Amino acid sequence: MSAEKAPPKAMLTNSRNVRIEWGDCDPKGIVFYPRYFAIFDECTAHLFERALGITKFQMMEQLEFAGWPLVDTRGRFLISSTFGDDLTVESSVKEFRRSSFDLRHRMLKRGELAVEGIETRVWVSKDPQGRLKGTAIPDWVKARFA
Amino acid sequence: MSAEKAPPKAMLTNSRNVRIEWGDCDPKGIVFYPRYFAIFDECTAHLFERALGITKFQMMEQLEFAGWPLVDTRGRFLISSTFGDDLTVESSVKEFRRSSFDLRHRMLKRGELAVEGIETRVWVSKDPQGRLKGTAIPDWVKARFA
Amino acid sequence: MSAEKAPPKAMLTNSRNVRIEWGDCDPKGIVFYPRYFAIFDECTAHLFERALGITKFQMMEQLEFAGWPLVDTRGRFLISSTFGDDLTVESSVKEFRRSSFDLRHRMLKRGELAVEGIETRVWVSKDPQGRLKGTAIPDWVKARFA
Amino acid sequence: MSAEKAPPKAMLTNSRNVRIEWGDCDPKGIVFYPRYFAIFDECTAHLFERALGITKFQMMEQLEFAGWPLVDTRGRFLISSTFGDDLTVESSVKEFRRSSFDLRHRMLKRGELAVEGIETRVWVSKDPQGRLKGTAIPDWVKARFA
Repeated sequence: MSAEKAPPKAMLTNSRNVRIEWGDCDPKGIVFYPRYFAIFDECTAHLFERALGITKFQMMEQLEFAGWPLVDTRGRFLISSTFGDDLTVESSVKEFRRSSFDLRHRMLKRGELAVEGIETRVWVSKDPQGRLKGTAIPDWVKARFA
Repeated sequence: MSAEKAPPKAMLTNSRNVRIEWGDCDPKGIVFYPRYFAIFDECTAHLFERALGITKFQMMEQLEFAGWPLVDTRGRFLISSTFGDDLTVESSVKEFRRSSFDLRHRMLKRGELAVEGIETRVWVSKDPQGRLKGTAIPDWVKARFA
Repeated sequence: MSAEKAPPKAMLTNSRNVRIEWGDCDPKGIVFYPRYFAIFDECTAHLFERALGITKFQMMEQLEFAGWPLVDTRGRFLISSTFGDDLTVESSVKEFRRSSFDLRHRMLKRGELAVEGIETRVWVSKDPQGRLKGTAIPDWVKARFA
Repeated sequence: MSAEKAPPKAMLTNSRNVRIEWGDCDPKGIVFYPRYFAIFDECTAHLFERALGITKFQMMEQLEFAGWPLVDTRGRFLISSTFGDDLTVESSVKEFRRSSFDLRHRMLKRGELAVEGIETRVWVSKDPQGRLKGTAIPDWVKARFA
């Protein structure tokens, strides 16, 4: 590592307990995988709520912010789960760029990695015509994750 | 039936085929019932699309209309279904009032009533402050269902 | 009230906090109503978990029990909610019969009734051929709700 | 290309029309992305139904087959869609291995790629103890995709 490139600082991680419910599961009795993506979407909102102290709804009211649409995501499914299982999801931003950012969600079952989700999202706001456009993520927002 | 009360006119019925998918089903292998309500919500939109010739999206663009939020619904579940089953849903408006209306969805499995859904919805539009308010359903809309 | 009919005893009520998430909401920004039914289905499982001390999964392993399929449900939607709202759901059994039972879920928003759900379910078990059949709810189960 | 490596044969592609519904969309009015994964899961079943002439339910009854759980998936979201949009999904197997296989789903909006989904799945069957285990995909099944 050169002097120009500082070691990555530890980024804020939000940990959240998730109970798998009957309606999350398919006829094999295991989680229907689109439900994992819905859970990860919730976890992204909860990570920002922890960092900024306001909900996504409040962010949309108070900031020049209209959402963080997904442009790319990947899920890896290592251990299956069923209804009644209590899992933990650890969520963190891996990298902030100008208007896009990457997140990682690690879903743990009794301490072992069960599902991993990787997301690339764009910070958008509305232009005067009401269209969504990529917008620079404010520095103070990024600073809350350091 | 007295002379004062005319027989009910036949109302427009829209019939729609629905394939039950793996992800609609629960660990017992039968449809997770909230999915029926999502299907009925789709069927309401398709009934109006058949009556008016435009989609719900186009209705929101072209009419003083901002949706038909549900105020009351009931579902009766008589015969269960599983993934791969092909069902038919017959949807009709039972009664139009000033700004509210009732619908019935009859889901048929090989000709037998499998699920019945009853809905009461309100026709809403946005007032100048952007708030939703109950609004008179246009007479020409009602006439398309006769 | 006659001497033959004792006053109804207070039934166990389970209270549960529910955060409304972005993915629960529709293009108007309010909860897509099938999601309420999914939440009520979860609340039914949590009520029994509180009463019996075991999860639904454990009930299926330990008891002559294969689920509580819904035969009838009704929802009334009084106050809308959006993402970030924190609601409370109070769930209770209204009546146990031989093999069927009625539940009520009251979803409260800042103390006011926002959504009410009424359910009739059947207690089922598997016969030797693996078919589901209505089965008498054990007395000790009913006693846990008194 | 050398003589050792034959050119890839064209693989069977199944094309399917998908209407985006109100309940598929989020408060921004665009598809909530977990819904795309649910649609792709349906498209996988429909591709096999086209290739084999039987539904997934019938496959589970007639073959040594208990499902195709996902181990890895990726979604890329290029163009957003809203309720009332009619999309086409083209689905094909990219590669069959012994017991795992890769699929690609291309969702097109007016001829342009809107969403791409890549999946790796495992063909499983039940061992005598009822546990799911990876199982060789029958050659005759693979042959139906050539």
